[in-house]
Amino acid sequence: MTGAEILLKTAIKAGLEVCFTNPGTTEMPLVCAFDAIPGIRPYLGLFEGCCTGAADGYGRMADKPAMTLLHLGPGLGNGIANLHNARRARTPVFNVIGEHATWHRSADAPLNMDIVTLAETVSGWQRTGTAPENLSQDTADAISAALQGKVATLIVPSDVQWSDSPEDRIHPVKGPEEFIDSDSVDRAAELLGTGQKTALILGGRAMRREGLAAAARIKAKTGCDLLSERAPARLERGTGIAATEFIPYFPNQSLDLLAKYQTVVLVGAGEPVTFFGWPGYPSRLLNDNQNIGRITAADRSLPGALEGLADALGAPGHVDAAAAGFAQVERPQIPDGQLTAQKACLVLAALQPEDAIIVNESITSGAAYFPLGPGLPPHTLLMLPGGAIGYGMPCAVGAAIACPQRPVINFQADGSAMYTVQALWMQAREGLNITTLICSNRSYNILNIEFSRAEITAPGPHARSLTNLANPAIDWVQLSNGLGVPAVAADSCEVLARELKKALQEPGPHLIEMVF
Amino acid sequence: MTGAEILLKTAIKAGLEVCFTNPGTTEMPLVCAFDAIPGIRPYLGLFEGCCTGAADGYGRMADKPAMTLLHLGPGLGNGIANLHNARRARTPVFNVIGEHATWHRSADAPLNMDIVTLAETVSGWQRTGTAPENLSQDTADAISAALQGKVATLIVPSDVQWSDSPEDRIHPVKGPEEFIDSDSVDRAAELLGTGQKTALILGGRAMRREGLAAAARIKAKTGCDLLSERAPARLERGTGIAATEFIPYFPNQSLDLLAKYQTVVLVGAGEPVTFFGWPGYPSRLLNDNQNIGRITAADRSLPGALEGLADALGAPGHVDAAAAGFAQVERPQIPDGQLTAQKACLVLAALQPEDAIIVNESITSGAAYFPLGPGLPPHTLLMLPGGAIGYGMPCAVGAAIACPQRPVINFQADGSAMYTVQALWMQAREGLNITTLICSNRSYNILNIEFSRAEITAPGPHARSLTNLANPAIDWVQLSNGLGVPAVAADSCEVLARELKKALQEPGPHLIEMVF
Repeated sequence: MTGAEILLKTAIKAGLEVCFTNPGTTEMPLVCAFDAIPGIRPYLGLFEGCCTGAADGYGRMADKPAMTLLHLGPGLGNGIANLHNARRARTPVFNVIGEHATWHRSADAPLNMDIVTLAETVSGWQRTGTAPENLSQDTADAISAALQGKVATLIVPSDVQWSDSPEDRIHPVKGPEEFIDSDSVDRAAELLGTGQKTALILGGRAMRREGLAAAARIKAKTGCDLLSERAPARLERGTGIAATEFIPYFPNQSLDLLAKYQTVVLVGAGEPVTFFGWPGYPSRLLNDNQNIGRITAADRSLPGALEGLADALGAPGHVDAAAAGFAQVERPQIPDGQLTAQKACLVLAALQPEDAIIVNESITSGAAYFPLGPGLPPHTLLMLPGGAIGYGMPCAVGAAIACPQRPVINFQADGSAMYTVQALWMQAREGLNITTLICSNRSYNILNIEFSRAEITAPGPHARSLTNLANPAIDWVQLSNGLGVPAVAADSCEVLARELKKALQEPGPHLIEMVF
Repeated sequence: MTGAEILLKTAIKAGLEVCFTNPGTTEMPLVCAFDAIPGIRPYLGLFEGCCTGAADGYGRMADKPAMTLLHLGPGLGNGIANLHNARRARTPVFNVIGEHATWHRSADAPLNMDIVTLAETVSGWQRTGTAPENLSQDTADAISAALQGKVATLIVPSDVQWSDSPEDRIHPVKGPEEFIDSDSVDRAAELLGTGQKTALILGGRAMRREGLAAAARIKAKTGCDLLSERAPARLERGTGIAATEFIPYFPNQSLDLLAKYQTVVLVGAGEPVTFFGWPGYPSRLLNDNQNIGRITAADRSLPGALEGLADALGAPGHVDAAAAGFAQVERPQIPDGQLTAQKACLVLAALQPEDAIIVNESITSGAAYFPLGPGLPPHTLLMLPGGAIGYGMPCAVGAAIACPQRPVINFQADGSAMYTVQALWMQAREGLNITTLICSNRSYNILNIEFSRAEITAPGPHARSLTNLANPAIDWVQLSNGLGVPAVAADSCEVLARELKKALQEPGPHLIEMVF
């Protein structure tokens, strides 16, 4: 077997099923191996940021890594921003980068870059393959690392891919680690037992169904509040699921929220910090007068740790959802008249189907949506913990491939959408059940808000031009149709509601440009 | 003055005029400074790869750096591939990256990345600003380095941008270096004097008008051949200008070409190597039996070095262009009937106006165009020395902004165009005189050629799917119109000729989808 075949065989044995790729000449042996060693389906992206974004979305929903296959340093460079997002989301990614043949590196050919250095900026694990006979162990180690919630980068020179190995052993992959530091659970129980005003801040897999069920028991027993990370990689929401409040983006709001608590217990979340370093605000959102507890556990063990905490507090084993106030579906009415960002949120909340995956990259337009989530039918919300814009559309691709039976709705800011617009073509090619709702406000509105926060009431013409996407206005209907995704525009609530219903009924991708 | 204002004032004093940017919150002080300290016009790109590609195109044509302004690590990451291209093209770029406030870095906020490490992969010079009072010197040093043909990266934390400086001195910029190692010229003259079959391989600014005029004298005197780097960053071509032959892409062709020579003299070019490490071929294109000479000179001094070489050889001071066979315009006839890639090349060569800037990223479709260049009216050809696809459309943006009076024609592969398609919006917004000719063959055809070279006569379905862009076919007319650039499709030579003439007559950008 060639090195390429050994790599794929190891990945298939580990349960990997998909690869998002834009390959080139240095990856040809792996490209051919997809046919020779069937088991991993390759998906072509027209830009590497779409491949890495799709791998992020897939990993969040499948709880196992997608493989990527990127072409040399420039291909990795194009994928860096969404690998950064995957890293912050703790998404497992098996990130494979083709490299020049080992004997060709020193020629410093045109595409030569320092891939090792480039990869260090996003990888939780990385290695360069040196021989085909080691490539099964390399691959198994990479996938083991990925399963810990890391971007695991394996750089494979093309001669290592194409050479035959004297050794065909396929190495097994070590499963994801699970552990709970029970002392940390006990200390958290003590803090919660003091009767002080307390918040649990949930991160990672604490925000899955089982984690939230245990959190509901703790809340029912102690009266604590449940917060979640600012922009969760994945949060289960809806009726029957304990609601969490997000830590807000702007520092005055997040400081106000967190100042209410004498005690904060971090469960899978780091200590909260401001998104940017704003003048006049601290980086830390907690202060020295607060008691801070931390549950120490592997990401996969967080629900178990929360159950242990609930048990230690003597919380009843089951919370009556109706009594706890999260059983009732509370859909908003569909509003009428001219569409605004706020009304668009209401239409989405009124119509999103049960079990939907909501990929949210709405930046400023989605503010009114989040408080409605707990009253909607159960669904999954994917957000942007890494903050690098351009994650939404490819993340929807990956989520739809991981969960083909679930409808995916991408509530998507226009400026961010333009970063990885090529993902629409992947949606069309694969016939994915994704409805993209473009928030067409024709601006980087978040920056306009930053101007007013900085008391710049009249930004000059240059500054204004750098936040304005109106000249020319992007015609999302033509753009989307051009990439193969049928599209319509909606400037009223009635049209949006009608078109959203239609899009959700018809198989395949759709795009609705919501003109505000 | 704030650090941001000092930075801009220093750049303006150095003669910089444009900035390509997609800023965020950490760059707001610089955004506001564009209005406070007028002199640099900021251009918004909807994706950072378009900003860095535009800076590359601008720098190649203006012979001075554009500034970029990118948002943190992810913004730099998105711009890496075209910065790699700029580095390989020896383009001056003043690459400014916003960073979190110095006191906020340790909080490891969501967008935090190791920008220093990331920047090392493409920068010939880099520094992180630490205080506003040093920022003028930092900026001057960066621009001095850029003028040596480097990507010079200055990372500026947001507090360093917004803080007032106690010191307002604006530092001057050291001009680009000029030097010629006259010994290396003498040795080259000796080699050329032996009467062996010799090629000059020209790179960098040896390919400007003055360099090529001197090369013509050397050729007339010695009978040597003139070659140029495989994909020159900038080459002046057309009647009255000495023609060069490109070193081919495929190794059998390039080895065959170079094996003809007993002696090779490198003038601003590195020793030629194969583009990839192909099995059965060496990396080096020259061999130990060949005499290799090297002219050692600064990039700007290469034309002078060639003149020195011509003088040392006793070449007459002027070559009669008619006698040397490069005076006559030899336009091909406009072909007729169904369009093919080859016929598209003929239509372009038949119609391109005098003084046009041809941005070529046609990959496989442009093969028939290159031999025609020497017979066309004088023009500038920009190609892709770095090999990272997605350079064409933004490079055209930068070239058009540097040379608003010259028509720009971008002969552009479809697969590569999709990498930085957002550049069309910049073309529309600025009303640039760019005609984009999309080679719509709906495939990564270069990879199909690689399959056949590797004797993979029947690639499997997965391999085929990864080179095929036909499902769905991208509708470039809708896509381009959606981004504000009027577009038509052409599937016959007649329609292409008619539409190309029309596009060149009308101001502003146009796109023609050439359907092969």
